[in-house]
Amino acid sequence: MDWFKRLLIGRPLLTHELSHQRLTNWTALAVFASDALSSVAYATDEILLALAKVGPAYLYWVPILSGAVVVLLFIVASSYKQTIQSYPSGGGAYTVAKENLGAWPALMAGAALLVDYVLTVAVSVSAGTEAITSAFPEFYDHRINLALFLIFVITVANLRGIRESAVLFSPPVYAFVGFLGFLIVSGIGKIIATHGGIISSQTLTPMGPTESLSLLLLLMAFSSGCVALTGIEAISNGVMAFKPPESENANKVLGRLVLILGTLLLGVSILSWLYGVIPSEKETLLSQLGGAIFGRGSLYFALQASTAAILVLAANTSFADFPRLASVMARDSFLPRQLQNLGDRLCFSNGILLLAASSMGLVLLFSAKTHFLIPLYSVGVFLSFTLSQAGMVVHHLKSREPFRYRKALLNLVGALTTGLVLLIVLRSKFHHGAWIVCVLIPAMVCWFYAVRRHYSHFDRMLSLPIRSPDPKNLKHTIVIPVSRIHRGVVAALEYAQSLTNNIRAIHVNFDEDLSQKLKEDWFRLAPEISLSILPAPYRDLTEPILEYIRKVEAEDPHDLLTVVIPHFVPMRPWHNVLHNQTAIQLLLALRELKNVVVTTVRTPVE
Amino acid sequence: MDWFKRLLIGRPLLTHELSHQRLTNWTALAVFASDALSSVAYATDEILLALAKVGPAYLYWVPILSGAVVVLLFIVASSYKQTIQSYPSGGGAYTVAKENLGAWPALMAGAALLVDYVLTVAVSVSAGTEAITSAFPEFYDHRINLALFLIFVITVANLRGIRESAVLFSPPVYAFVGFLGFLIVSGIGKIIATHGGIISSQTLTPMGPTESLSLLLLLMAFSSGCVALTGIEAISNGVMAFKPPESENANKVLGRLVLILGTLLLGVSILSWLYGVIPSEKETLLSQLGGAIFGRGSLYFALQASTAAILVLAANTSFADFPRLASVMARDSFLPRQLQNLGDRLCFSNGILLLAASSMGLVLLFSAKTHFLIPLYSVGVFLSFTLSQAGMVVHHLKSREPFRYRKALLNLVGALTTGLVLLIVLRSKFHHGAWIVCVLIPAMVCWFYAVRRHYSHFDRMLSLPIRSPDPKNLKHTIVIPVSRIHRGVVAALEYAQSLTNNIRAIHVNFDEDLSQKLKEDWFRLAPEISLSILPAPYRDLTEPILEYIRKVEAEDPHDLLTVVIPHFVPMRPWHNVLHNQTAIQLLLALRELKNVVVTTVRTPVE
Repeated sequence: MDWFKRLLIGRPLLTHELSHQRLTNWTALAVFASDALSSVAYATDEILLALAKVGPAYLYWVPILSGAVVVLLFIVASSYKQTIQSYPSGGGAYTVAKENLGAWPALMAGAALLVDYVLTVAVSVSAGTEAITSAFPEFYDHRINLALFLIFVITVANLRGIRESAVLFSPPVYAFVGFLGFLIVSGIGKIIATHGGIISSQTLTPMGPTESLSLLLLLMAFSSGCVALTGIEAISNGVMAFKPPESENANKVLGRLVLILGTLLLGVSILSWLYGVIPSEKETLLSQLGGAIFGRGSLYFALQASTAAILVLAANTSFADFPRLASVMARDSFLPRQLQNLGDRLCFSNGILLLAASSMGLVLLFSAKTHFLIPLYSVGVFLSFTLSQAGMVVHHLKSREPFRYRKALLNLVGALTTGLVLLIVLRSKFHHGAWIVCVLIPAMVCWFYAVRRHYSHFDRMLSLPIRSPDPKNLKHTIVIPVSRIHRGVVAALEYAQSLTNNIRAIHVNFDEDLSQKLKEDWFRLAPEISLSILPAPYRDLTEPILEYIRKVEAEDPHDLLTVVIPHFVPMRPWHNVLHNQTAIQLLLALRELKNVVVTTVRTPVE
Repeated sequence: MDWFKRLLIGRPLLTHELSHQRLTNWTALAVFASDALSSVAYATDEILLALAKVGPAYLYWVPILSGAVVVLLFIVASSYKQTIQSYPSGGGAYTVAKENLGAWPALMAGAALLVDYVLTVAVSVSAGTEAITSAFPEFYDHRINLALFLIFVITVANLRGIRESAVLFSPPVYAFVGFLGFLIVSGIGKIIATHGGIISSQTLTPMGPTESLSLLLLLMAFSSGCVALTGIEAISNGVMAFKPPESENANKVLGRLVLILGTLLLGVSILSWLYGVIPSEKETLLSQLGGAIFGRGSLYFALQASTAAILVLAANTSFADFPRLASVMARDSFLPRQLQNLGDRLCFSNGILLLAASSMGLVLLFSAKTHFLIPLYSVGVFLSFTLSQAGMVVHHLKSREPFRYRKALLNLVGALTTGLVLLIVLRSKFHHGAWIVCVLIPAMVCWFYAVRRHYSHFDRMLSLPIRSPDPKNLKHTIVIPVSRIHRGVVAALEYAQSLTNNIRAIHVNFDEDLSQKLKEDWFRLAPEISLSILPAPYRDLTEPILEYIRKVEAEDPHDLLTVVIPHFVPMRPWHNVLHNQTAIQLLLALRELKNVVVTTVRTPVE
């Protein structure tokens, strides 16, 4: 197994090989923006899908609602600028909430973030797969396998501990921005050149029964579009990665990110309205636009490729964030300790594997359909936004800094806005899957507490009565299970006799003749030690032995009972298949007896 | 896990609950005939498919070739009648070959039989699935899952140890014979009533390029039909199940079986010719005939249901035969010993699971298509026939019984005929999959020998130098790995001190501060025992410990080294998830060191 692990994830790394490298502003933009920017690939689709239900006549709402989303984007970003100022060492929602609001809100934020990281992977990979299957419809039926394969590749890359982030991220991110920008410019140019005359005829065919446009429907469409904001908080988590002055540079980059994201979002929405795109299950909006504007040539395929690439990168960011947060929460005893350890490639391997498994589960459960996953996604995002901003309000009020009331007000606006959006998302998406997250997050919080309670209880129990060891307290009893006489049994007997003379040999009777023969052999070998033959009416080895041991324990509860198992070891591991493995069977069964010492005396057989 | 096992397979049974009940001749026919009779459901399909390649003009060969198959059936049956006479306690090919021809032929027969049992399950279940999907074409796409589900159900039933064979087998077997007989009679009656005028028009459309009919093609079609003979040997394995006089009754039943099988086979072939049935991938011959003769009413569905039922029963017989043969071969040390044990429901559980897994693998590999599996099937069947008959020739020649030359001659004819068919099957089906079996059987035989060689070598090594145990020989060294000071460590220390004073504590350094603290605590707890801090540059626990132990072993090779692992046990098993499980990690890693004794001192924590 080891060579396979090495082949897959590479040689182990020394601890001091973990080093930090600072990013320039342009590479930082690429590294931190992929999650946020990539949402352009599906956010407008979602607005469009929600509106399409009532009929194409209302598609002019798409740019309007996108505009509302962009306004929201500016509010949230301004709010986060203050977080960057106040938490230059990285201010995730969990940290901010823990320091300012207390444990419960922090755990809620933690749960929301963990859920979101899983959903980021599932949504991004599904959307990336859709970008691919839009270009190559023949792969549509294989999209689930394709999505799973992409997650697998990202997982392996992260288990290897990919660190060359800047080199890896810049080309696809800037390619995506470039191609998409070019798409918007040429699209609008084309309309102008033809005097606005090319709105395709399909807009005019109504789709299904035309409902009247209710406020609820508009809110639903808006809340669908809010998914565009996911990933905007990434920079505030990674301020330390910037060159000094860190906070200032980070804020500069956040400004650029918001500008690019807002422009792309509005641009795509306007195009979708101008070109009268109707949402299709099998082709994404970007692919339809690309086909209509570029034609299905190399430019179109480049656009699709860069879309898929940035989405995969977005998924990849979760593979850094999820294990890091899980490790922090594990250090606070809210998650199992295994999540806290660095693997031998200096990455949090257990967290990576957990994230991979959960996101693959989601992809399978939702058939790799972005649209089905989105309602689950937004709840967690806006819950963590709200908690983080609310935490910032408290942070400012508690501080002694200048302009603290003005700052608090700014964050309060952010908190109220994102809180309002959270309510809108809950109201409009509850039946479409948001309820799952509403059940999941409180359940997770309860579990975090249960984990912490367990650890503190356990620590107390372990450390309480420390006394000096005193071997004179011990009175040994030894039980040796024997199947037949061989060298291993002699070794086990010798070992037992070096400990005590209170030895009991036992044999489980599967075959009357064998048992009789063993009795005779035993008498020749060790006449001074009694051998009990245990009946096995159900031909089960372990139950009679456990029963016997329980009886011996009850007879003299002050003795310390040791089971000495004679275990012959074949030289080649695959020879194990040929043996009954009774020793291992017994070892596992003995785990039930909590007060028994188990000793395996091994005899290698050449 | 235990409650789940009980729910699935029921309460354990006492050994003496294994009892034999004798069968009347009519119930015996049902019990032993399902495998043989069920082949009517696919044998004619195979002849038809082989002939259809050259064009429908030659379909009149179907009844002729079926006639040849029936002749072969009579020859083989007469040969087996003598086996029943000579081996009243059951004469499977493995037993007969072992007693008369020696180990190599016996192992070849054993391998052929094991392969065949697996194929019986795969073929019967696939054909049963085809009977169902012929009636309900909407399930055609789900046929693999359906087949796997059927195997699963049969497996569970057999793990429960189904014994009510007679009650279970009679209704479906006689229903199948009844419906099929009625189909043949009505089909021929219908033709006569309409003066032979209803040969359907589809016979006249040629299928693909019409080749001329070569001898090879006829042989191929014939060898395809020979699959009808599978299962004919079942009675000779189970003579003991008959009422006395056992051999006579068994022979009577064999006679009836051959008569019924021959009649059905010929009948179906004649119908297929009269009705000009053209083979179809999605509908079996029986289903086409049933539809044409009965119409798609309740009679038709009853025919399909009884066909599916008898095929599932045929698969079920392998679940009795495979584990029994595997157990016999395991007792002869040719297979791993685990196959020898009766499970707690008095069935050979390991054999059943092995059979289930292999047949499921075949179903998946061949997409549950009977036609693809048949070429593999016949090779094993006729190889075991030939070996068994050849063994009988030797048996007669060696005996002193009257008419021994006449009897030997009869078996010789059987052996030569089946041997010839084997050659024909090999020649005509080699490229269609028969080669797989040709590779597999010799490989299995070699493996059987390797297993036996290993066991005998192992036994020799274990039993050779038995001396009386002498604990004075032992000089102990003890290594205790410590992560931090807790009650468990104290218990482990006490235990170690009761054995020797030569104790070395070790700690793997993951965190400089923790290690420093442990050093101080240790000095207060046990100043007389040295504590070594091992560096862990790759944050790996086990490698530094293994390395340290190897060093200690090398220092004083005459000491017996014991690793005492302090292991705290949480009260509830699921709490194990919350601990790093370092003890278990260590236990597994220590398996590498073949001369080290491993002791786990457990401290339960409430």
